[in-house]
Amino acid sequence: MLEAILRSQCALDPRRPVLVGVSGGPDSLCLLGGLHAAGYPVIVAHFNHKLRPEADEDAGFVADHARSLGLPCVTESADVAAYAAGQGLSIEEAARILRYRFLFAAARKNAAQAVAVGHTADDQVETVLMHFLRGAGLDGLKGMEYRSLLPAFDPEIPLVRPLLSLWREDTEGYCREHGLSPRLDASNADPAYFRNRLRLELIPILTRYNPQFKSALLRSAAALQGDHDLLRESVEAACRETCRESGEGWIAFDADRLAGLSPAMRRNLIRTAGETLRPESSDFGFEALLRVADFAGQPAPGKQVDFACGLYLFAEPGRVVLAAYEADLRSAAWPQVDSAVEIGAAALDLGDGWTLAIERLDLDAPRLELPGDTWSAWLDADALNGPLTVRAPRPGDRFQPLGMPDGSLKLSDFFINVKLPKRARAHWPLVCSGDRIVWVPGYRPAHAARGTEATRRVLKMSLKKL
Amino acid sequence: MLEAILRSQCALDPRRPVLVGVSGGPDSLCLLGGLHAAGYPVIVAHFNHKLRPEADEDAGFVADHARSLGLPCVTESADVAAYAAGQGLSIEEAARILRYRFLFAAARKNAAQAVAVGHTADDQVETVLMHFLRGAGLDGLKGMEYRSLLPAFDPEIPLVRPLLSLWREDTEGYCREHGLSPRLDASNADPAYFRNRLRLELIPILTRYNPQFKSALLRSAAALQGDHDLLRESVEAACRETCRESGEGWIAFDADRLAGLSPAMRRNLIRTAGETLRPESSDFGFEALLRVADFAGQPAPGKQVDFACGLYLFAEPGRVVLAAYEADLRSAAWPQVDSAVEIGAAALDLGDGWTLAIERLDLDAPRLELPGDTWSAWLDADALNGPLTVRAPRPGDRFQPLGMPDGSLKLSDFFINVKLPKRARAHWPLVCSGDRIVWVPGYRPAHAARGTEATRRVLKMSLKKL
Repeated sequence: MLEAILRSQCALDPRRPVLVGVSGGPDSLCLLGGLHAAGYPVIVAHFNHKLRPEADEDAGFVADHARSLGLPCVTESADVAAYAAGQGLSIEEAARILRYRFLFAAARKNAAQAVAVGHTADDQVETVLMHFLRGAGLDGLKGMEYRSLLPAFDPEIPLVRPLLSLWREDTEGYCREHGLSPRLDASNADPAYFRNRLRLELIPILTRYNPQFKSALLRSAAALQGDHDLLRESVEAACRETCRESGEGWIAFDADRLAGLSPAMRRNLIRTAGETLRPESSDFGFEALLRVADFAGQPAPGKQVDFACGLYLFAEPGRVVLAAYEADLRSAAWPQVDSAVEIGAAALDLGDGWTLAIERLDLDAPRLELPGDTWSAWLDADALNGPLTVRAPRPGDRFQPLGMPDGSLKLSDFFINVKLPKRARAHWPLVCSGDRIVWVPGYRPAHAARGTEATRRVLKMSLKKL
Repeated sequence: MLEAILRSQCALDPRRPVLVGVSGGPDSLCLLGGLHAAGYPVIVAHFNHKLRPEADEDAGFVADHARSLGLPCVTESADVAAYAAGQGLSIEEAARILRYRFLFAAARKNAAQAVAVGHTADDQVETVLMHFLRGAGLDGLKGMEYRSLLPAFDPEIPLVRPLLSLWREDTEGYCREHGLSPRLDASNADPAYFRNRLRLELIPILTRYNPQFKSALLRSAAALQGDHDLLRESVEAACRETCRESGEGWIAFDADRLAGLSPAMRRNLIRTAGETLRPESSDFGFEALLRVADFAGQPAPGKQVDFACGLYLFAEPGRVVLAAYEADLRSAAWPQVDSAVEIGAAALDLGDGWTLAIERLDLDAPRLELPGDTWSAWLDADALNGPLTVRAPRPGDRFQPLGMPDGSLKLSDFFINVKLPKRARAHWPLVCSGDRIVWVPGYRPAHAARGTEATRRVLKMSLKKL
């Protein structure tokens, strides 16, 4: 049965090496024995938590056992208590992080196809119960999976748990049958650990309410895993249809499509996007999800809402963007400039594939309406004076757009009127003649540079993205 | 807050009547008071379970209270214990069925927009915990909803539970504030009822593991309801793309599309279809779902698999059908006949919109290949002898299809060869001349009735569905 699980549920290839985390307890000895017997090339890995007096003996036992099987063995130790104190983590959480870091680093170094750990059906029941008590959603209640990725530790090497349908007493039986004397972890009986209290006290109580409680919980977890997979499929399909663009630390959605999804789908989609931006965080909290899903249901351009884990959501015309507070939100879809550059005869490279081209044309006859579109403009060359430059906006900039014969606007108000997304404004390219803005690419030429009856010489400018 | 819940979560219209189930306890008195104060036209309904000595006093109390509010009151009683014994149900389950039957019947009679009941957040916690202990899936763990349909009781009138976010002590506080003296149900303290043991013993224990256990569970339920809704959306979309046809007691799926879905989606889809066929059943069991989803993943035409609740799944060429064992599987998409009918000059009505038309043609020149397609055939009229009839297959029928010059086949083997679905065979129409089958519509004319050089007179037959 284990062989079938290794192949199908864990999707392991019997010819490629597997790195097995071995504590020396019955579960990991059983897992190691099973993988070895099934013919997998195995690398034994032991992490010495240095938390108990017997820790070094455990490490020696594992190394000896690996040697007796003729298997390579890698070990590492770390000061878990110090790390926990430094990071403000519980001892269990700190131990978990350091242990997985070591296991995945060793797996990568040894070109292992997966990290295998000895979690059993009992661990699954404890895990699901723990999530149940703290009010988890589907993500937590589904429990552990035979094969999963932990992007916080490695983006590709999966964690596999081949023993998830085996009870702890089965692994103990395996050790007895194979003459193995597993190490006993005395801390497993310490009621100071929450998980131990569940195992020793609470699960026996719950079993009084349903004698089949443990297998019932396993069945629940299996059903919820199926539902979770299905949900993930749907959410990923919705993502593909809703995401429009992304950059380092941000993901932009089509505002209408996002608002058109059901609230539950919006919550799931934003959670999935949040996990992409913050792979080390797995729990944003349900309240936070409700808040951002509400916001995305009726987004008001210019507004933003805090999410969780240093992420926030903001709306701009046509887009809703999930972003990290520290992210650079510039989009390569827009032309953006940093400093002022003089426009010469040659085409000007503005970066991100954007180029400004210039052409000088002579007109045979007057044309009252000069042509132009979003990304190109014809200007009256004789109306321009002073050197032509491209630069970013400056405080106090004013602009007199075509069609506004008298006075001028604050450039910031013009940007608001034309609904230029806020994050694009600071670096939006402005074509200037001397200190006057003569063209705001993407929007409007200046009124003073328009074509008149007298226009004979034209400057044709176009901005193009390759 | 209650008013907002009545409007948004329960989707009630304040101008239309609501039927409120009132036991006389604090929850239902609070619900009644809240609806009445919010201006809803209310009909009070009390079901007398006749299980406790005080039952008649409770009924009198509710009637008096309704009168004091100037509200109409309907009551009914039934012998719950006898019904439980007769149906082999627990007292609780029998009481629930009879109570809801009464409430929905009364709601319909009084043109109420909904049946409202006083389930509180405490009931929700108990319900979710009960499902958790028995190993439920998402369906159970999501708990009760503010508004839901119970198709077993009424296909249209919803059940609403406006108090789901109010704790029981809040409803008691409401009664104190409003000078109401709710009836006390002594059976609420009886540990013989499983639910009471949860409330009195287990929930206090679980609260030692998480002081916020009850609100954590409420939060879980809310999150799971969202996921459940999302899942339902996806499943319904998959249903629309996969269902091909349905009849009384059966639903046919496109076999390839069904097999192309993920196993979790197949399970959900078949469960949904099962609920449509058996609205009174809500739990088919996870094992059964795994079994049918497996079958549908690699359907073998001619095979079938048992599902649950008197339903089974069978495969036929191109289709997988979920059906009740007692269902009549005839499809209106096929021509089907019961008895023999003589073919005269006029078109023959075969029922379900199917008509057999006949035309006699004279050929000017010999045509070796007579035309014909699935639903029409040209036969050599001079090769036919004996009266023309349409009839269903009979035991022992043999057929000599066009292209088989010597001998003949058992008609049943011919049906297998052409992959005619099994359920269509017993009533498939056969066109006969005397005792010889001359055309199997949908498949092949008889060899003996083919066109030859000598053919001059043709019988053109066509079967059409309006």
